[in-house]
Amino acid sequence: MAEQGNEKKQGFVEHITPRDEDFSQWYTDVIMKTELVDYAPVRGCMVLRPYGYAIWERIQEEMDKRFKATGHQNVYMPMLIPESLLLKEAEHVEGFAPEVAWVTQGGNEPLQERLAIRPTSETIFCAMYSKWVSSWRDLPMKYNQWCSVMRWEKTTRPFLRTAEFLWQEGHTIHATAEEAQEETLQMLEVYREVVEEELAIPVLIGRKSDKEKFAGAQATYSMEAMMQDGKALQAGTSHNFGTNFAEAFNIQYLNKEGKLTYVHETSWGTTTRLIGAIIMTHGDERGLKLPPRIAPIQVVIVPVAAHKGGVMEKCQELYDQLKAQGLRVKLDDRDTLSPGFKFNDWELKGVPLRIEIGPRDLEKGQCIVFRRDTYEKQEVALQELSHKLPLLLDDIQKNMFAIAREFRDGRIKVVSNMEELKKATENGFAKAMWCGERACEDRIKAEMSVTSRNMPFDQQPVGDHCVCCGEKADKVIYFAKAY
Amino acid sequence: MAEQGNEKKQGFVEHITPRDEDFSQWYTDVIMKTELVDYAPVRGCMVLRPYGYAIWERIQEEMDKRFKATGHQNVYMPMLIPESLLLKEAEHVEGFAPEVAWVTQGGNEPLQERLAIRPTSETIFCAMYSKWVSSWRDLPMKYNQWCSVMRWEKTTRPFLRTAEFLWQEGHTIHATAEEAQEETLQMLEVYREVVEEELAIPVLIGRKSDKEKFAGAQATYSMEAMMQDGKALQAGTSHNFGTNFAEAFNIQYLNKEGKLTYVHETSWGTTTRLIGAIIMTHGDERGLKLPPRIAPIQVVIVPVAAHKGGVMEKCQELYDQLKAQGLRVKLDDRDTLSPGFKFNDWELKGVPLRIEIGPRDLEKGQCIVFRRDTYEKQEVALQELSHKLPLLLDDIQKNMFAIAREFRDGRIKVVSNMEELKKATENGFAKAMWCGERACEDRIKAEMSVTSRNMPFDQQPVGDHCVCCGEKADKVIYFAKAY
Repeated sequence: MAEQGNEKKQGFVEHITPRDEDFSQWYTDVIMKTELVDYAPVRGCMVLRPYGYAIWERIQEEMDKRFKATGHQNVYMPMLIPESLLLKEAEHVEGFAPEVAWVTQGGNEPLQERLAIRPTSETIFCAMYSKWVSSWRDLPMKYNQWCSVMRWEKTTRPFLRTAEFLWQEGHTIHATAEEAQEETLQMLEVYREVVEEELAIPVLIGRKSDKEKFAGAQATYSMEAMMQDGKALQAGTSHNFGTNFAEAFNIQYLNKEGKLTYVHETSWGTTTRLIGAIIMTHGDERGLKLPPRIAPIQVVIVPVAAHKGGVMEKCQELYDQLKAQGLRVKLDDRDTLSPGFKFNDWELKGVPLRIEIGPRDLEKGQCIVFRRDTYEKQEVALQELSHKLPLLLDDIQKNMFAIAREFRDGRIKVVSNMEELKKATENGFAKAMWCGERACEDRIKAEMSVTSRNMPFDQQPVGDHCVCCGEKADKVIYFAKAY
Repeated sequence: MAEQGNEKKQGFVEHITPRDEDFSQWYTDVIMKTELVDYAPVRGCMVLRPYGYAIWERIQEEMDKRFKATGHQNVYMPMLIPESLLLKEAEHVEGFAPEVAWVTQGGNEPLQERLAIRPTSETIFCAMYSKWVSSWRDLPMKYNQWCSVMRWEKTTRPFLRTAEFLWQEGHTIHATAEEAQEETLQMLEVYREVVEEELAIPVLIGRKSDKEKFAGAQATYSMEAMMQDGKALQAGTSHNFGTNFAEAFNIQYLNKEGKLTYVHETSWGTTTRLIGAIIMTHGDERGLKLPPRIAPIQVVIVPVAAHKGGVMEKCQELYDQLKAQGLRVKLDDRDTLSPGFKFNDWELKGVPLRIEIGPRDLEKGQCIVFRRDTYEKQEVALQELSHKLPLLLDDIQKNMFAIAREFRDGRIKVVSNMEELKKATENGFAKAMWCGERACEDRIKAEMSVTSRNMPFDQQPVGDHCVCCGEKADKVIYFAKAY
């Protein structure tokens, strides 16, 4: 048994590509070896395995309760959208048509009209809203749905960009422009809170440039996270459509004065991409590192010399106690694997805390507690465990966020010309002044594959001329290479 | 205000077709007027509106916690299945091919191979299981997914039969036939428990005939509920595939003796159809009637003369108190509608308990509590409310189940010839002996549009000759018209 354990243990170490050597391969190794995900028999699609899906369930839980607390209700809209419906808003269809998967046959018969598998559901929400709204009393309508969407991407990577992915999409309609803008920013703030406080990922929030905004939106806001290779990952977006869609779909209501008025609309979404963000923000050479608040397993108990009298009994007792306390705990009672193998396995899987208990610990009435974030081991009296573990989990959560923020802040450089911009975005973000012209964004993208991320709400200038054209500039903006 | 209220109140009563007059139209009126659902812009698809989706969330919650308690894990498999994969198990493809929606184009390019939108996911689970299993140590694998599926049906009705519907599908693989059979029956029992205890719908559980079993299954078990028109609704199924799919997909493992062995597989599913079952089991002439354990709103508080001093304050106080107590409560504070309108509205929506509070109640330190199931009103002292409401909800739940069971049992007739079978299935179920020949099932279906439902586990004979051909028969089976 021990032999097999050691063999596999070395296997782990050998098989994860070092992060610094090849970040991209490290990522692939981590997601595959932790069994988060697998490739599906359909091009560009992924399978979410139990451990990966469990993380998604945790994210859903945290998001969903906040959606409900802010007055949103869940619904379900059909996955198929008639082509004629998709064509109604011009910018929108232009943005999405090239990525649509089309259903052309139902059963044995060809369809009269092609049906799109939803790439996003603005059009179908609009079609229904136009049916449901008649008076100001019906407003606002604040709906959300959890589903999958399909975008026929050429190049795919699990979690980051796949043909099908899971997400939530909120769609709301409001009586006034002010309310719609308030909603747009409120949901951006909900996203920020979940991502920073639960996922321990620091984000930059701000407004997208017109070039980078959502197809059909008046304004798009995003949160941008920095991965350990210095690249940006757009972690969520919130859009204000104004009356664009309402006009295309004729969504009008009678206001208090009895006048027909277009509604103001928003939409906002986050996806399984957030799991990719967790991996690339926190992972290290031993594998995944999960923030305690989102970890499906927060504490794993590994018996040492499990066959010795009393060890398994004590482990089971501890398991019951910690579970009853509300911790997400697992007892690794696999009897064909060595403790050493298990240690590596759970470090690889990113479990925040590990408890080791052997016969000598039992004698001393203690156990060993191992922190995944710092690799520290400490002896803890068994009777203090229930008190100590929640404190340790809190500390790990804070520590992981602090480390990620320090890393990110150290790689944001203020730049004032193209050379500095290029250098800064080789391994981080550039903060720059921008004139507002799309031509400058286009040139930056063409020359260095760098895109504008967003314009922070704090527009305190960091210069007065455009980083690209050198003209007078009053917009503060972040640039980065992006996933 | 009061005028508008009364006007709309009468509106409700007028617009629901009486149950006895036209059950089918009554059903449509109820689902549309309670805003559970709406028709989508795509043929045969439905939109689940907030109230309908909230019921689905309650069902999900009850199912999911039991799946997890019995050792299952959630995953997500892609919605698209290559045609070649679907073709691997012959019976299966024969069963589903006529109902498949096909994707033939991705972006602007035609696909080399057609992709099916999953009608069910056995084939893709099998493809993945064949990758994931190698040793007996890997077994069992017990996975479930929550998703939507697509079946291109000709005739559709919301909840009962739609082109797309939401469901869960469990797929498990096991080392032995015994374990697979145990799993199949365990999940049937989980279903029975949820449907009887939470949805208050009595079901008959048993095994399907070969004619009615799932395409590719060795054995299918079902639970069958009786709707108020006497028709059967198949409320959930659990299948044992034996090694059928394992052989088609080559899912083998090395057993403890080092020999390659096929796994034994099961699958089981329930759908949003259960919402249809709730409506048609419990609804009445006033509309929907929801069992308290599944109701998104268990208690609604309606202020009477809300403008009078202290009324809204007391309502809000009660709301906070009941909510903190864990009840699903709503305060109807809409200020443009009369109490009478609201009473009708919440009766229509099937909320189990209504609390009415006006100035005179305040004086007496009491409120009126109305039971949706019995239409009874009682005065309850405010200080007893927290204690009393949970008892009332329990009583309603039990009462609704008892009434549904009594109704059903009164419409199950033991029959011994075709004439009796025809008569019994005009407004209920027939319990009969059957020889086991498909020819008899075919004849019964052809002559009276009646199908076999299932063979109960208790096979206590109710005769000795087949209800159809008159030959010797040893199988007890239920027949009914079915949704």
